[in-house]
Amino acid sequence: MVAGTPLGELIGTHASLEANDVVVISQKIVSKAEGRTRALSEVEVDAEATALAQALDKNPAVVQLALQESRRVIRADHGVLICETNDGWICANAGIDSSNVPGENTVTLLPLDSDASARRIRAELRGATGYSPAVIVADSFGRPWRIGQSEVAIGCAGLHPADDWRGKTDREDNELTATLVAVADQIAAAADLSRHKAAGVPVAILRGLSRLIVEEDGPGAATLQRPVAEDLFR
Amino acid sequence: MVAGTPLGELIGTHASLEANDVVVISQKIVSKAEGRTRALSEVEVDAEATALAQALDKNPAVVQLALQESRRVIRADHGVLICETNDGWICANAGIDSSNVPGENTVTLLPLDSDASARRIRAELRGATGYSPAVIVADSFGRPWRIGQSEVAIGCAGLHPADDWRGKTDREDNELTATLVAVADQIAAAADLSRHKAAGVPVAILRGLSRLIVEEDGPGAATLQRPVAEDLFR
Repeated sequence: MVAGTPLGELIGTHASLEANDVVVISQKIVSKAEGRTRALSEVEVDAEATALAQALDKNPAVVQLALQESRRVIRADHGVLICETNDGWICANAGIDSSNVPGENTVTLLPLDSDASARRIRAELRGATGYSPAVIVADSFGRPWRIGQSEVAIGCAGLHPADDWRGKTDREDNELTATLVAVADQIAAAADLSRHKAAGVPVAILRGLSRLIVEEDGPGAATLQRPVAEDLFR
Repeated sequence: MVAGTPLGELIGTHASLEANDVVVISQKIVSKAEGRTRALSEVEVDAEATALAQALDKNPAVVQLALQESRRVIRADHGVLICETNDGWICANAGIDSSNVPGENTVTLLPLDSDASARRIRAELRGATGYSPAVIVADSFGRPWRIGQSEVAIGCAGLHPADDWRGKTDREDNELTATLVAVADQIAAAADLSRHKAAGVPVAILRGLSRLIVEEDGPGAATLQRPVAEDLFR
């Protein structure tokens, strides 16, 4: 995967898409296609990153990149660096990842705007296949309170990332006051079940979710970011 | 669903199970079958709950039950009550839920031990069908930093809740140092995609996950609880 690869065109010509599919694409391959990779040996590490890396027992170049990619450090403790990225995602090391990246000491950064990536890939898929599947860009994030990672959506196009039941009624005619289902995240999680971590499967296609798919690109996964004023944990 | 219903037997006689299925069951129906429902009108509300309910603009009886079901309050602010339940789950209102529960002002509490529920249901399924599917008890939890809810596993039997890749290598022969996939949570999320919130579908069956299923009941979903000493957000 070289930088500049038209990922949607590539997927569209190799996958057998049907109407109303959801195409879930790993962040890593999107980042590679967008040139969002860095050689750690070429990173200039400043004093702040050096000190923080020492305190956390982390690679200084990774810490340097994480700080560059972030607008805020949420926690730096216990060997863990939780960042709020420049485009608003909260995750370890600003989403910088070295697994499944070829080349000694090469890492991927998150796409600059994963919703824009999803929209572009969707347009390329439409051009290649005639279909307009929903597209999700997914990454593995850790969670407070629970061990392990789960895939979440950091970009999406063609579906509403949250299925909003607030104000509607349940089967017992009770009003649902807080029910807002993060369907884009659940789709990302479901897609991850189709592979294991060394399988090298960067794309999964989910079928049967047509009730969630919309013609327009929709508001994007960034609308899943909880506004800081409503957030109790940063 | 009356208290005392043998849920596994009921599911086993109505569903067409196959070997290596995963049966995902909503917390709500498990709670009902275990008699974990309460009429809010019968709850005696003390002074602490009254004051907290007023501060949060919440139903005092719900707050009273949430405090009884919790060993610690994690946050009480912005109209939100985040609790650590007596068996270690961190969620809003200690998991107390009034949606899709018949009867004015009746709520469900979480099962006392959802892993024990999953093991018992699995044994009943085995008795009814001859198969030993994996069983997950799932509930919708909100998340810090991200809006909306996603289903997670609060109980499981017959699968390892986390798929541990730490110390293994990826396709590029890099060692994976932190990769631990919360597969039980991802399965719970995937199951939720098969229904909508007013569909009244309390059970979903997932097929094709045999690589994750084990003969023994395994360590249970409680092993997904991050120990407080390693947690940066409580």
